[in-house]
Amino acid sequence: MTQNLTNNAAGRMVPSTINGVKHPPFSGVGKYKPYRRKAAPLIPTCVDYPTDGNKVVSDLKTALQKCGLKDGMTISSHHHFRNGDLVANQVFDTAAELGVKDLRWFPSASFPCHAPIIKHLDSGVIHHIEGSMNGPLGDYCSEGKMRGMAVLRSHGGRYQAIQDGEVHIDIAIITAPTTDPFGNATGDQGPSACGLLGFALADSQYADRVIIVTDNLIPFPCIPWQIHGNYVDCVVVLDKAGEPEKIVSGTTRITKSPDRLLIAEYAARFVAEAGIMQDNFSFQAGAGGTSLAFSIFLADMMREKGVKARYVRGGSNKYLVEMLEEGLTDYLLDGQTFDLDGVRSMRENPRHINTSPFTSYNYHSKGNFASLTDVAVLGATEVDVNFNANVVTHSDGKLLHGIGGWQNCLFGKCTMLPIPSFRDRIPVIVDEVTTLCGPGELIDVIVTERGIAINPQRTDLIEKMRGSSLPIVNIHDLKAEVEDICGGKPTPPNTGDKVVAAIKWVDGTVIDCVKQVGG
Amino acid sequence: MTQNLTNNAAGRMVPSTINGVKHPPFSGVGKYKPYRRKAAPLIPTCVDYPTDGNKVVSDLKTALQKCGLKDGMTISSHHHFRNGDLVANQVFDTAAELGVKDLRWFPSASFPCHAPIIKHLDSGVIHHIEGSMNGPLGDYCSEGKMRGMAVLRSHGGRYQAIQDGEVHIDIAIITAPTTDPFGNATGDQGPSACGLLGFALADSQYADRVIIVTDNLIPFPCIPWQIHGNYVDCVVVLDKAGEPEKIVSGTTRITKSPDRLLIAEYAARFVAEAGIMQDNFSFQAGAGGTSLAFSIFLADMMREKGVKARYVRGGSNKYLVEMLEEGLTDYLLDGQTFDLDGVRSMRENPRHINTSPFTSYNYHSKGNFASLTDVAVLGATEVDVNFNANVVTHSDGKLLHGIGGWQNCLFGKCTMLPIPSFRDRIPVIVDEVTTLCGPGELIDVIVTERGIAINPQRTDLIEKMRGSSLPIVNIHDLKAEVEDICGGKPTPPNTGDKVVAAIKWVDGTVIDCVKQVGG
Repeated sequence: MTQNLTNNAAGRMVPSTINGVKHPPFSGVGKYKPYRRKAAPLIPTCVDYPTDGNKVVSDLKTALQKCGLKDGMTISSHHHFRNGDLVANQVFDTAAELGVKDLRWFPSASFPCHAPIIKHLDSGVIHHIEGSMNGPLGDYCSEGKMRGMAVLRSHGGRYQAIQDGEVHIDIAIITAPTTDPFGNATGDQGPSACGLLGFALADSQYADRVIIVTDNLIPFPCIPWQIHGNYVDCVVVLDKAGEPEKIVSGTTRITKSPDRLLIAEYAARFVAEAGIMQDNFSFQAGAGGTSLAFSIFLADMMREKGVKARYVRGGSNKYLVEMLEEGLTDYLLDGQTFDLDGVRSMRENPRHINTSPFTSYNYHSKGNFASLTDVAVLGATEVDVNFNANVVTHSDGKLLHGIGGWQNCLFGKCTMLPIPSFRDRIPVIVDEVTTLCGPGELIDVIVTERGIAINPQRTDLIEKMRGSSLPIVNIHDLKAEVEDICGGKPTPPNTGDKVVAAIKWVDGTVIDCVKQVGG
Repeated sequence: MTQNLTNNAAGRMVPSTINGVKHPPFSGVGKYKPYRRKAAPLIPTCVDYPTDGNKVVSDLKTALQKCGLKDGMTISSHHHFRNGDLVANQVFDTAAELGVKDLRWFPSASFPCHAPIIKHLDSGVIHHIEGSMNGPLGDYCSEGKMRGMAVLRSHGGRYQAIQDGEVHIDIAIITAPTTDPFGNATGDQGPSACGLLGFALADSQYADRVIIVTDNLIPFPCIPWQIHGNYVDCVVVLDKAGEPEKIVSGTTRITKSPDRLLIAEYAARFVAEAGIMQDNFSFQAGAGGTSLAFSIFLADMMREKGVKARYVRGGSNKYLVEMLEEGLTDYLLDGQTFDLDGVRSMRENPRHINTSPFTSYNYHSKGNFASLTDVAVLGATEVDVNFNANVVTHSDGKLLHGIGGWQNCLFGKCTMLPIPSFRDRIPVIVDEVTTLCGPGELIDVIVTERGIAINPQRTDLIEKMRGSSLPIVNIHDLKAEVEDICGGKPTPPNTGDKVVAAIKWVDGTVIDCVKQVGG
C-alpha cells in the first residue's frame, strides 16, 4: 500500500488523503484559517419523539436498530470510564450480531479494556478507529493490521473535527452514570459515577442519533444535565455501565522515583522563581506521576508564600481536590476526573467546575481557556533540540499513547515538560522527534533531572532565571550528556512505508504521521 | 399596501411572504416537519481572538464597529431585565450616531422602557421589530406605522427560528449582570443580577458576532458560565447595565380581585380533584396575578394532602421559591426570574435550575420539557367555543402582549386557562378568537368565575370530574351567560387590511396575523 505524502510546514511528510478524504497539511501555528461553516445537523422535531419524554428502549440492540445502524456508519463513544468502560465492546458485539460491516469507531480514547475490539477489526465489523489507542489496539495499529488509517486528535481537535463537519457521527453512544428517561445525563452521580461527560458533548450536539446507556435511571429531571436530553434519541438501561474504580489508571499515581521527584521539584521551583506563582495565577498539571508530584510541591510553596491560585485545571485528582478544599485555589476547572475524590468533589463542591473540550480546548472557537492558563505542566515521550515534542510514540516508533489535551495545553502562557532525560537507557532528548505532536515554538521549558532547558525564544524567561539556583542548561549540552550516559543516540525506529496513523494539529491540519513498525 | 394571504389549516388567512421571505402556513398541530438542516455558523478560530482572553473594548460604539455593524443587519437582545433594560436603547442610539439604517431588531421581548426606539423606527435606523411588543411599541405597530411586518414568536419558537436559520442574527447584544473578560457571563450575580440569561442562549450560539454588556467585570472564570465566552467577540463595561428591581412588572403581582381569587381556587381544586396533584407531579404556572394565586392555593392543598411535586416550572417568584425551600418540590426549573427572591434562590439553591428555551421549549428538538409537565396554568385574552385561545390581542384587535412561553406550554399534559369570563364588560369567551395563538385541541380546561369548561376531546378529564363539587359547565352555556351579562357579543375590531404582525406557531409556520387597527 503506497500513500501520497506531502511536505508540511514542519518539514514532515504527511498523507494528504486519509481514508479517501483530503485533509490539509499543517501550515504553521496560527497559520491555517477555516473559511467555511460549521456542520449543520438535521433539524429534528418533537413530532418524532414521545410527548411523555420516555425514550427508554429495552436493550442496546433495539436502540441501535432504532437509530438505523448500517454498514459504513461512524459510531462514537467517550472515555470518561477510561479502562473501566463496559459499553463499547457490547456495542460492537451487537453490531457483529446484526451483521453490520465497515464501521468507523470514533472514541475519544480507547484503553486496554477494549482489546476485544480487535476481533471486530479482524472480522470487518470495524473498518478503522479514529481516536487515541492505548495498549493492544495501539500495537494492532502499529503493526499495520488495521484496514483504514488511524487518526489521532487532541481533545480540542476532536471537538473541532466534529463541529467543523470533518467527522460526521451517525450514532453516538454516551455511557452515563445517571440519566432520566428523557435522556438528560450526568456523570457525577450514581453507582458508576465517573465525574463528568464533557468528552461526549460534541457527540451529543452533532451526531444524527444519540443513545444514552446507563445503569441508574432516575425520574426527570436528572440534574445537572451535563448532556441535554433534547439531543437524545434513546435511553438504554444496563445492569452495570462502567467500573469507575478503574478510572484510576497507571498514569494517575504519584511517582516514587527519586529522579522524577527531583524533576517535579525543579519544575515547581521554576514556576515560583520565574514569578509565575503569584496571587490569582493559574496552572494545569496532567495526570502523570511527575505532574502529580509537581502539584504537591507547588502547593507546598503556595502555602509557604501565602499565594492563592484563581484556578487550577485538571484532570482532577485527590491532590487538586485538596488544594480546592484548602482554599489554595478559587476554582478547579475539570475536564476529566482521574480518581474518585475528583468525582465526589465535582458532585459536592460548586467550585469544582465541569468543563468540556468546547470550553477548554476547541481551537475553532472565539478563544478557549487553554491559552489563558499561566503554566501548563505536561508529559512527553521525546523532545528534540528545537523543543519539538512527541507524545504518541517512543523512539521505537510504536503508537503507544493518545494526545489527550496535550496539544491544546501548549497554548498556555508557559508550557513546561518535566521529563526524565532518558528512559530504559534510551535518550528522551533527541535530534529530531520520531513523531511531531507539538511544535517547539509552543514549548518553553524542558525540565529533566540533569537540568532545565529554556526555549531560546523565551528571552523573558531566560532573563528571569538569570542567577537562579536551579540548574539551567543548554539543550544541546543536555542532549550530549544524555547520549554519553546512554552510549549514543537512540536506534532509529524499524518502520516500513505504510502510514498507519495521521496526527492532527489542533486546527484539523495534519502535523505528522506514524508508520508501520516492523515494515 | 396589499399582501398575499393564504388560508392555513386553522382556517386563518395569513401572509405567505413576510418582509420578502416565504414562510409556510400553519398545517395543523404536529403536521409540519422540517426536512432540512440547522443553521451553520461560520467557523471561528482562536487565531482571531486575543490569547490572553481579554475581549474588553472601551465602549458600545467600538464594539459595534468591531463587529462590523452596517445597514440592514439583524441585532438581537434578550429581555431578562424586562422593563429595567438599559442597553437596547443605547445600542440603537449608537447605531443612529453611526448613521446606520434599516436594522432589524430581534429582541426576545420589548417593554415600555423601549418607547425611545420609536424615534429610530421613524427615522429609518430600525426597519422593523421581530419580537413581543408590550406597550408603546405594540401601539405603534398596531397603528401600521412600522415599515416592515412584525413577527411574534413564542420563546421556543424564537430558539427554533434561530436554530433553523429562519432568523440570522448578525450581532447579538447580551446584557449580563456579571462577566469575565473572556465573555463568560451569568445573570445570577452582581449589582444588576436578574437571574438567568436563557433567552440569549440561541443568540450566543448562532449569531455571527456576540457582544456582552455588563456592569460587573470579574476575573476569569465567571461561574456559572450561563453564556459561554467561547461564543463571545467583545465585552463592554457600562456603569449600569440594568435595573433588576424593574423585572417585577405589573403582570407579576398577586391578584386582589375576589373573582380572580375564586378562579385561581377553582383551578387549584380542579388539579387536585382530577387526580393530577399526586406525588412527583409537575406544574407550570405563569406570572400573571391569577396564576400566582393558583400556585398559592395549590401549595396549600399539597401541604394538606402531604403531596410533593417533582418539579415546578417557572417564571420563578417568591411563592415558587417558598415551595422549593419548604420542600414542596424537588426542583424549580426556571426560565425567567420574575422577582428578586427568584434571583437570590437561583444563585444560592442548587435545586433552582437555570433552563433555556432550548431545554424547555424548542419544538425542533428531540423532545422538550413542556410536554412532560402534568399541568400548565396559563392566561389568555380571549378563548372561543372551540377552545382556541388568543394571547396577543384583545377583542379590539390591538397588539398588546407577547406570546412568551405560552404556545410552548400548551403541550403540557393538561393545559388550563384560568381567566375572567369578561373584562371591562367585554366577553372573554367568544365565537371565534380575534387572533389565533393556540389551537383548541391543545387547550383542555377553561376556568372562569362562572364555571369550568372542559374540552370535549378530554373525555378522561370529563369522566374524572363527574360528581365534582366544582361548577363544571358547557362552554356554549358559559358564553351565552357572559353575553347576557355584557349585553351581547364583543364589537368586532375596527381593523384595516394591512397585516402588521405575523403570529408564528412553535414549528415556524404562520398560524395567524394581526391587522392594522383603525385601518
